[in-house]
Amino acid sequence: MTEFEQRRKAAAGGLGARKVQALLVSSLASVRYLTGYSGSNGLVLLGESEAHFFTDPRYGLEATQNIQCKVHVAKKPLLDEAAGVIKRKKLKKIGFEPAWMRVDEYRRLEEHLPSGVSLVAAGGLIEELRKVKSMEEIERIRRSVLLNSEAYARTMRGVHPGVREREIAAELGFQMRRLGAEKTAFDTIVAAGARTALPHAQPTGHRLAVNELLLIDMGACLDGYMSDMTRVCFAGAPPKRVTQLYRAVAEAQLAAIDAVRSGATTVKVDGAARSVLKGHGLEAAFVHSTGHGLGLEIHEGPRVAKKDKSKLKAGMVITIEPGAYIEGFGGVRIEDTVLVTANGCEVLTPTSKEFVNL
Amino acid sequence: MTEFEQRRKAAAGGLGARKVQALLVSSLASVRYLTGYSGSNGLVLLGESEAHFFTDPRYGLEATQNIQCKVHVAKKPLLDEAAGVIKRKKLKKIGFEPAWMRVDEYRRLEEHLPSGVSLVAAGGLIEELRKVKSMEEIERIRRSVLLNSEAYARTMRGVHPGVREREIAAELGFQMRRLGAEKTAFDTIVAAGARTALPHAQPTGHRLAVNELLLIDMGACLDGYMSDMTRVCFAGAPPKRVTQLYRAVAEAQLAAIDAVRSGATTVKVDGAARSVLKGHGLEAAFVHSTGHGLGLEIHEGPRVAKKDKSKLKAGMVITIEPGAYIEGFGGVRIEDTVLVTANGCEVLTPTSKEFVNL
Repeated sequence: MTEFEQRRKAAAGGLGARKVQALLVSSLASVRYLTGYSGSNGLVLLGESEAHFFTDPRYGLEATQNIQCKVHVAKKPLLDEAAGVIKRKKLKKIGFEPAWMRVDEYRRLEEHLPSGVSLVAAGGLIEELRKVKSMEEIERIRRSVLLNSEAYARTMRGVHPGVREREIAAELGFQMRRLGAEKTAFDTIVAAGARTALPHAQPTGHRLAVNELLLIDMGACLDGYMSDMTRVCFAGAPPKRVTQLYRAVAEAQLAAIDAVRSGATTVKVDGAARSVLKGHGLEAAFVHSTGHGLGLEIHEGPRVAKKDKSKLKAGMVITIEPGAYIEGFGGVRIEDTVLVTANGCEVLTPTSKEFVNL
Repeated sequence: MTEFEQRRKAAAGGLGARKVQALLVSSLASVRYLTGYSGSNGLVLLGESEAHFFTDPRYGLEATQNIQCKVHVAKKPLLDEAAGVIKRKKLKKIGFEPAWMRVDEYRRLEEHLPSGVSLVAAGGLIEELRKVKSMEEIERIRRSVLLNSEAYARTMRGVHPGVREREIAAELGFQMRRLGAEKTAFDTIVAAGARTALPHAQPTGHRLAVNELLLIDMGACLDGYMSDMTRVCFAGAPPKRVTQLYRAVAEAQLAAIDAVRSGATTVKVDGAARSVLKGHGLEAAFVHSTGHGLGLEIHEGPRVAKKDKSKLKAGMVITIEPGAYIEGFGGVRIEDTVLVTANGCEVLTPTSKEFVNL
């Protein structure tokens, strides 16, 4: 049984509990999880004993060659084609993913289905399976993480005051690609100086200057699997306030990592980082959550956040990335990708967290 | 009045005809169009006399500094916050974008709105405005197109047999970034040999070999505006069948460009390309549409396709990209970005369409 057949079987096993005969899988990451399809227009109708994959003619050749389940190359909208299969198979209860189906698609689907067919919200079925990674998936994430760190190391050799944020981002993307990445996992964040206080800064033409912080948040996508890392360094000898900020965030990050283990709640991991920052008077400066799962998507379950109710399990892969941001001054975030294990975790990211002074 | 205020005013003028008091704008490209916001989590509630912008704390600082309308930095889901504003303003008829709102968001919004508030499908209102570009937008697209072609030219100097598809894609992305692009407009397509028959091939580790076709489909995103170009070349002296295929597609592309003018239907433009390919016996080999509008999105209105009912207007910017794909042999696509004018069009793409032999 191939990896994909195994996953489809596991997913099909969850249909009964959702009281549906089949699930329409709209999330492209879940479609990839179930079939290996990596294009931009695919849909799966997963039934109890068979699965149908739908794509358009641009991907027809690849799909028929590589995907084992029943492949439909449709000239009309994929949901219309899927509705035809539902009709022919006389299926009556169809699950769908409310987080991945748009309102217009839903309404169109309703129109195309015979009366008597009901659409049942059945979100999260595939996402739930995806949270715990297989050995093969962990291996792919590990390779993605290593590639990402190598691209960082190669790029940093050429980073010095005078280089533009945008040039650094360009070089990071180039090195990732050269090392075999499909693409970057997300738009690389490169911010210097006070702009490091913007947690999601986009790189500009600004040239790194002496006595500035430099924040880089980057990830690679390799064979579909993501990595995610943030490092901060300083151009020159950092003043005390900067070093203190860095140390506080590093301490928070290590505390959170220390709290990771199978069975721990994510809220406890988040709280570990948050309470360290609170001790440094930086609670209000930590404006986002501590981390998130990653895999075929850069953000997937579980969330590692305040008020979250997830429990960690061995085989989950999450980021740990507390930060503190001070308007007009700057910000620090330190992020690793970690694998949850029975007794703790393995930090997959090999890049040093020493506070580098360029 | 700023560019964004003008656009919000024009958009607000369309609310009456849709019989709504305000429109929830979920499309991020439309949010950027109305506010300049370029992050990944933004929402606009556009009323007749005022507009509200919603984002999360990661973007709070940037948003409050740069966006002129009422800015809400929300710790809860943006739609919940917007529902609060709708309640306070006692609005009763709210338009939403069915193509951009997910089913779970819609349901959540319904729950958060007081009874008596109705949600009305009002899709396409902003997209319709975005189809015809302002002078400033045309200038931005022009610069994006020129940057894209320059990145192509710089990259092609180093392309020769032995170079991997993935390395070419890496270099193209790097050059775009170096030239100032925010990012690539889409995942760059680089395909060699028989893989050129896959219209949406993803670059692999395959090394370009002598006597192979090489297809590159690339676009840049500069200041939010996209460009899109496809070129095909050949490593070595092309055999007659390849030259014929290239010429047929080039002829179809020129015929389509020739059909572009204000007032022409898009189906006529599509038909112009299609009938040339039919004359060469390649009708079935042309598996996609002739083109699409582009701007803040890589694919936006109008579509240039079979069965489409749009009419071109001066100021629209579209791609013209017929192709022909022969399984096991290879494919050719030639694509320019063109500006529709009163009497015809201006081909913005400066890159030569001569059949280059590497």
